[in-house]
Amino acid sequence: MHKIGIIGATGYTGSELVRLLHHHPEVEISIITSETYEGKRLSDIHPQFEGIVDVTLKSAKQIKEVNPDLVFLALPHGVSMDYVKELAGESIKIVDLSGDFRLSSKNVYEAWYDKPHSYPEGFAQAVYGIPELFRKTIKKAKLVANPGCFPTGAIVAAAPLVKEKLVDPKHLIFDSKTGVTGAGVKAKVVTHYSNVNENFKAYGVKTHRHTIEIQEILSQYGETETTVQFTPHLLPVDRGILTSVYARPNKQITQGDLNNLYDQHYSNEPFIRLSTTNPEIKNIRGTNYIDIFPLFDERTGNIMAFSAIDNLVRGASGQAIQNMNLMLGMDEGLGLDIIPLRP
Amino acid sequence: MHKIGIIGATGYTGSELVRLLHHHPEVEISIITSETYEGKRLSDIHPQFEGIVDVTLKSAKQIKEVNPDLVFLALPHGVSMDYVKELAGESIKIVDLSGDFRLSSKNVYEAWYDKPHSYPEGFAQAVYGIPELFRKTIKKAKLVANPGCFPTGAIVAAAPLVKEKLVDPKHLIFDSKTGVTGAGVKAKVVTHYSNVNENFKAYGVKTHRHTIEIQEILSQYGETETTVQFTPHLLPVDRGILTSVYARPNKQITQGDLNNLYDQHYSNEPFIRLSTTNPEIKNIRGTNYIDIFPLFDERTGNIMAFSAIDNLVRGASGQAIQNMNLMLGMDEGLGLDIIPLRP
Amino acid sequence: MHKIGIIGATGYTGSELVRLLHHHPEVEISIITSETYEGKRLSDIHPQFEGIVDVTLKSAKQIKEVNPDLVFLALPHGVSMDYVKELAGESIKIVDLSGDFRLSSKNVYEAWYDKPHSYPEGFAQAVYGIPELFRKTIKKAKLVANPGCFPTGAIVAAAPLVKEKLVDPKHLIFDSKTGVTGAGVKAKVVTHYSNVNENFKAYGVKTHRHTIEIQEILSQYGETETTVQFTPHLLPVDRGILTSVYARPNKQITQGDLNNLYDQHYSNEPFIRLSTTNPEIKNIRGTNYIDIFPLFDERTGNIMAFSAIDNLVRGASGQAIQNMNLMLGMDEGLGLDIIPLRP
Amino acid sequence: MHKIGIIGATGYTGSELVRLLHHHPEVEISIITSETYEGKRLSDIHPQFEGIVDVTLKSAKQIKEVNPDLVFLALPHGVSMDYVKELAGESIKIVDLSGDFRLSSKNVYEAWYDKPHSYPEGFAQAVYGIPELFRKTIKKAKLVANPGCFPTGAIVAAAPLVKEKLVDPKHLIFDSKTGVTGAGVKAKVVTHYSNVNENFKAYGVKTHRHTIEIQEILSQYGETETTVQFTPHLLPVDRGILTSVYARPNKQITQGDLNNLYDQHYSNEPFIRLSTTNPEIKNIRGTNYIDIFPLFDERTGNIMAFSAIDNLVRGASGQAIQNMNLMLGMDEGLGLDIIPLRP
Repeated sequence: MHKIGIIGATGYTGSELVRLLHHHPEVEISIITSETYEGKRLSDIHPQFEGIVDVTLKSAKQIKEVNPDLVFLALPHGVSMDYVKELAGESIKIVDLSGDFRLSSKNVYEAWYDKPHSYPEGFAQAVYGIPELFRKTIKKAKLVANPGCFPTGAIVAAAPLVKEKLVDPKHLIFDSKTGVTGAGVKAKVVTHYSNVNENFKAYGVKTHRHTIEIQEILSQYGETETTVQFTPHLLPVDRGILTSVYARPNKQITQGDLNNLYDQHYSNEPFIRLSTTNPEIKNIRGTNYIDIFPLFDERTGNIMAFSAIDNLVRGASGQAIQNMNLMLGMDEGLGLDIIPLRP
Repeated sequence: MHKIGIIGATGYTGSELVRLLHHHPEVEISIITSETYEGKRLSDIHPQFEGIVDVTLKSAKQIKEVNPDLVFLALPHGVSMDYVKELAGESIKIVDLSGDFRLSSKNVYEAWYDKPHSYPEGFAQAVYGIPELFRKTIKKAKLVANPGCFPTGAIVAAAPLVKEKLVDPKHLIFDSKTGVTGAGVKAKVVTHYSNVNENFKAYGVKTHRHTIEIQEILSQYGETETTVQFTPHLLPVDRGILTSVYARPNKQITQGDLNNLYDQHYSNEPFIRLSTTNPEIKNIRGTNYIDIFPLFDERTGNIMAFSAIDNLVRGASGQAIQNMNLMLGMDEGLGLDIIPLRP
Repeated sequence: MHKIGIIGATGYTGSELVRLLHHHPEVEISIITSETYEGKRLSDIHPQFEGIVDVTLKSAKQIKEVNPDLVFLALPHGVSMDYVKELAGESIKIVDLSGDFRLSSKNVYEAWYDKPHSYPEGFAQAVYGIPELFRKTIKKAKLVANPGCFPTGAIVAAAPLVKEKLVDPKHLIFDSKTGVTGAGVKAKVVTHYSNVNENFKAYGVKTHRHTIEIQEILSQYGETETTVQFTPHLLPVDRGILTSVYARPNKQITQGDLNNLYDQHYSNEPFIRLSTTNPEIKNIRGTNYIDIFPLFDERTGNIMAFSAIDNLVRGASGQAIQNMNLMLGMDEGLGLDIIPLRP
Repeated sequence: MHKIGIIGATGYTGSELVRLLHHHPEVEISIITSETYEGKRLSDIHPQFEGIVDVTLKSAKQIKEVNPDLVFLALPHGVSMDYVKELAGESIKIVDLSGDFRLSSKNVYEAWYDKPHSYPEGFAQAVYGIPELFRKTIKKAKLVANPGCFPTGAIVAAAPLVKEKLVDPKHLIFDSKTGVTGAGVKAKVVTHYSNVNENFKAYGVKTHRHTIEIQEILSQYGETETTVQFTPHLLPVDRGILTSVYARPNKQITQGDLNNLYDQHYSNEPFIRLSTTNPEIKNIRGTNYIDIFPLFDERTGNIMAFSAIDNLVRGASGQAIQNMNLMLGMDEGLGLDIIPLRP
């Protein structure tokens, strides 16, 4: 049994970690922390756990005395970095669910996140945590930067195209649509029911931080400089991201070629389901799957790809556990064998 | 390992049985049937199972050769009865999820279901499957009539009041609100998105078949003749039933008395969570829990009770598995240890 | 043309007043106020008005110099009372949409609203604004207390029963379900999308302030002391209230008698639609209608009635305009001839 | 007063025509037809009209004897063409809401609609009914082909770019998201509540009929051959379409240039609202407005534009009335002065 800590229990990624780890056969949760709700029970904050996980929340100051094998940082960006710094000399492995160590450098971070970075040494250590692309380095990592929700679906959908230099890397378009939980647990104007329900809009056009994350990781993985146009939209649903990718092939191609390409990259991946129909977010709800449908339109000459993920699972806590499994030498899929909740 | 069959895989209760049994440690699904889709894969009908449960659907004619220990009949009422008749001489145990054997007699059935009953012998054999009320007889049953979704939440909420003769049995009011999946998988005017979304209404007032089911079971369990007013309403959600019960005490009572009463009945029950706040359907989503909040209003003199269940799990397939566990001598909660999917 | 002021433009009732009055043929909006957003345009706060109603918001201090014929107070309770006091000596008529003058006395108010009342003289002046019940006094009123959203649907549905002494006045049950806009425009935990969506629960059981409002008005109108059990629930929709009423007849009755009773009371009312099917909130969306379906269940001996209203229109701003029309001597229905927005 | 007929009253476009025309000051509805429901009242089919518009439905065979000035064909494609043929020799003007006369020729129609066309003569007569682009010819038209819902929002958003030859016409991408009413009133698998709610997916990728409509009209209006990639997605809302347009400029450009361009084209248009924030479908709900936000991303070099319409109003019945107003010599905006229903 591995001992695990969850730092930050009051958001949705924290509660999802508890939900998923509860059934993990080789892990026990040794500590769950919240500075705001220290002393309260988890189920006081997240009532669905009542009678199931009623554990008392501790302060993160107790982490070192508990000395877990690995901690998840389920904290906002700008906060995570201080914990990573604090734990730098310890043997505790870290999966950071924030955006603090996903980018390439302090400069890039500060330009897109508009705040100073307190632990720039972390950028070199951090491994970007998409197992299908970076499995080998994740296994050896001390610090994994768990990917953003949008980047996960976007990068995995486009990676084969960029890696094989099949498409013009300067004209990649990602039109994404996310459920409301992506905006977090806090009550804000943007999460007021009557502003979301029966509504739909784009937001963060040109400026969303996940733009640079997608662009840097695709450039790194594809060993090509890419330019990414990323447009998020807000769906009136709780969970799920559908991303529609548009790209221009720079050589002759057929649908068969495209299918082969995705098969080569992903057909052995346990959490990727290649599809020949349009992915639906309800088909992956509550799970770690990525459903992908690549498509070539002979009439227009465009390549498209559609990907569907659960933003809280594959886009956050599920992928974090997949990374933990690799980092601690366990089977990658442990604890993540879930059937989507549909209907 | 017990061998299990699922008769009727194309509805929601069928797919929920597969979802839940997939993780059951002591059961294997030996056959899943559909007369309409024989030869197709389960995931052709329910795409969320793609790559997880792709088993081929068989005809129910093959049941006897497979010879499972128990079958679930996930069939419409009026169809189930023929299968029960057919399997009457076999050693195969049956959990019938339809309404065909829940009532007391052929006469009552035909009056409320407005169709002839082909196997009236079954009424005497069938045990009504709410484990918290009828656990002992369920353990020995060959045929369990799995309760209706509304009756489950209504009966469990009111049973202590009736059993202890605390309330006027002639004036019981159940105001229930259900998610759309209660109307089944078929496309109908009533399930058209734009008839449900942003809408709310009562239906089946005075005539809903679950009225007599609630009334008969409460009368039987409480050993008192009851009169039940039951009003279902249709909620714009997928899953969940909230029932608000109104009753008149026929003796002096306090909130403390009420709490004690419910504690005595239910505090040791693994799937009942007694609450002191208003139950929410999202807190039990995807699970077998019943959340109950009993309440006495000193000002008006009324007793109220609120119960929340997931209509597809506790109101159908989850309770069916709980019954199966009892009938096959396993731990009652096996396979049902699930954390609600919230948000 | 009558000159009208709207005090408090930032909430939903304020924006609904503007939406509805925009088409009123005999009224012009002379001033719209907001202390918080003074100097901003209405469409900065409510973007749907962009290019349609872009008027600049003023301070309420300018009301007297504008000197309108009538003002609507679209303010929170506890705030309205000060404006009523301030305008006491003026000739400006007032429709107060808050709860400050709906109850019978300072004592009752303070007991249920848990705050001191600064203008108790107003209770005697204020006329309760349900035109179908109190039309004559409304016409002569200087101050109308516009009814609460729940009380409107509840009282109109039950008034004929109480007035005719047909039912036991001590055992009236109102089980109501409301859309989220009833909770106001502010971002709160209770209005967070993911706490409402796919969810349903009761709230304010035993203690909701509309309980006493329903009880006092039914007692007054029916000239009988009533006891009201009122249970609100929160629906995942924007607008609409469905109320289910349960009552015990205290004499022999038939469905025909019931129909006659409601016909006598309401068949000439332009905004009441008596129905013989279950009212749906989508059938009255955006309008001032009340759909009512009274029902007698011979089997149980209970009388039921279902009513549907739009909480922002008939439950607030539409009824306020209906009252204004009466107070200023216009046709009662002016500006309220709207077809429901369905789908 | 102009006399108007509505052929086909049972769908959503039919009921929207009635809703909107009810307040039109210079038009009276002389006949509403339904072959299926002849003899029933409109409010039997669309219950929201109860007590407001209860008119009896007639057969379309009575059109000629009523002899209206103009008829709306609110019929499925493949059906409309026969009515147009039938009325060819009459003086009755026609606004056809189906897709039967929107394309350039019988050949193109049959290739994309996969059915024979019975009245190819109509293609030459029909004027495509986007008033902002084709106002002059609409005024003189006998037959207007009312645009598809998606094409309306897509074409109006991109027309200035194509007209001014500012962008590469071969690489136009339209990523659209529509509410469920676009799929019509019929109960189908795709409109089942539980297949739409909490779900999102693309559909009709590469093959949707609106693709060729957008492409042909943009080519015609821009006098350039265009290639259009159009991807519709299904939103869990009743009404509204948001379209995100992506294009490559073929010359140097700034945001200021873009703003000027759209101002020149649209600043005098009563139903186009140019925006500098992200359009939201709830801000145009129930109305004839098109909200447009054009945007240049200096970092990527892409032009984007976002447009929001109500698919049933501006995407169908509202635009049909705007066309009627022009065809009958009335003010273009008559009957369409509506404030969006938000919240």
